[in-house]
Amino acid sequence: MNHQLLDCEHALQGAISDAIGPQCPPKLAEALQYAVFPGGARVRPRLCLAVSLANGGDDLRLTLAAACAIELLHCASLVHDDLPCFDDATLRRGKPTVHAAFGERLAVLSGDALIVAAFECLARATETSANPRRVGAVSRLVANGVGAPAGICAGQAWECEQQVDVSLYHRAKTGALFVASTTAGAAAAGMDPSQWQALGSAIGEAYQVADDIHDATAQSESLGKQTGIDVALNRPSAVRELGLSGAVARLEDCISKGIDSIPPCEGRSALIKIVQKQSERFFPEGIRCPAA
Amino acid sequence: MNHQLLDCEHALQGAISDAIGPQCPPKLAEALQYAVFPGGARVRPRLCLAVSLANGGDDLRLTLAAACAIELLHCASLVHDDLPCFDDATLRRGKPTVHAAFGERLAVLSGDALIVAAFECLARATETSANPRRVGAVSRLVANGVGAPAGICAGQAWECEQQVDVSLYHRAKTGALFVASTTAGAAAAGMDPSQWQALGSAIGEAYQVADDIHDATAQSESLGKQTGIDVALNRPSAVRELGLSGAVARLEDCISKGIDSIPPCEGRSALIKIVQKQSERFFPEGIRCPAA
Repeated sequence: MNHQLLDCEHALQGAISDAIGPQCPPKLAEALQYAVFPGGARVRPRLCLAVSLANGGDDLRLTLAAACAIELLHCASLVHDDLPCFDDATLRRGKPTVHAAFGERLAVLSGDALIVAAFECLARATETSANPRRVGAVSRLVANGVGAPAGICAGQAWECEQQVDVSLYHRAKTGALFVASTTAGAAAAGMDPSQWQALGSAIGEAYQVADDIHDATAQSESLGKQTGIDVALNRPSAVRELGLSGAVARLEDCISKGIDSIPPCEGRSALIKIVQKQSERFFPEGIRCPAA
Repeated sequence: MNHQLLDCEHALQGAISDAIGPQCPPKLAEALQYAVFPGGARVRPRLCLAVSLANGGDDLRLTLAAACAIELLHCASLVHDDLPCFDDATLRRGKPTVHAAFGERLAVLSGDALIVAAFECLARATETSANPRRVGAVSRLVANGVGAPAGICAGQAWECEQQVDVSLYHRAKTGALFVASTTAGAAAAGMDPSQWQALGSAIGEAYQVADDIHDATAQSESLGKQTGIDVALNRPSAVRELGLSGAVARLEDCISKGIDSIPPCEGRSALIKIVQKQSERFFPEGIRCPAA
């Protein structure tokens, strides 16, 4: 598989350019650019693109719109998650968070505008895609990953409850957007999305466990964001539950289960390699990845 | 025109039911319901529905999805606008604001989830409408009304700038969603949306002037929300600029201009009556409406 095809930077730049047109208030324009570039690993859009390509990927424009929307929504969730009323984080991707750099009001607004930009991206695809009805399915899958009842917003909202179902909490806060990535990738290629839920769900769980491991072991400098927040906020964590080696074993298990779940498709072996390669970054330095 | 056709309560209830499904955290579910019901005058969705019906309204399902999305986005903007970092308002539609009743975190999250629910509503329409490509155009028009560079988010963001273009500010903060209402209504009926911008823009301006008049003259109890905020926050206001009678004259002028701008269409005279009727509520008690 051509790895350049997994790159959505150009589509992201297009979406942000549309959002920061000449009439945009200058500080909002700056905050939107700042929230999206330079990006992190872009794990979710890469996964979406990889699944679509493994399924023949006959509508690259729609797939790119889906990948781009998913990353914009991820960036929006980080901006709002870092707000003073949530994590009150000051460091993200090695630089001040949006609210630390631009103030709370612009952080709320840029998060909102990124959510809108994500769906605008998909709306444009409806107008130009050869398969407009597919775009509806893709948009709904993407929306499921971020809204209520079981997307990121719902996941965050579990933090406001006295009684928390930890599994529902993680599935909504972290898993749902990975499930959106795999299912929207499949739907963009005209395939049945339900067969791709298990892969998204397993990678989402792996990502959550990896995040817990990093939060417990890494230094802020190496990670580019604050650590120890889970413990400070008394959040459930795989490391607290299983110990470090138990958490690493769980992480390995999630990745294997994800790979095993990949349904038959023309690019299955190439997709497995991509998932293995992407998963390497889930392991803290000094702990070998099972695929290495 | 059958006025029941201008009612989108059922569609709104459907959208909120979808969002507060069994997996939803209970407080988020409660906050979402609280933010949308009981509603205000539902001016924007009524306008959207009225324009579509005046144009033949051959796709009622899509029109209802558009109207519903617009109202959900309006509710989301109110929830975020009332946050402590913006207006810090404690009263809205005669009851405590969402952040006052549920806390700041659930106010941020319910606003986010309402934005997502709005576009999910349109995504569903893409899957079921006979005109899936129209849904793309409608979704993009709706997105323009709320995002950056010139929708509600941009309007709010002008409040964070030192130098403000007051006309751009009002057009983005208030006018854009009215323009979305008229243009999306036309596009949902398969008509050219550009001919309907002037009506949305004029009603948006009228609404802004009416809001300034109410803010300057009414009591909190009669309005159901706090008054005097514009003055307290040193915001531009038609009453401060033109005096009370000057502002009322401007309001009358906006409504006339809006009505004059309505392009030829089969339901033009019925639409004019609806616009006149809806505009009556823009005038404070004791000041006669030109259409009365």
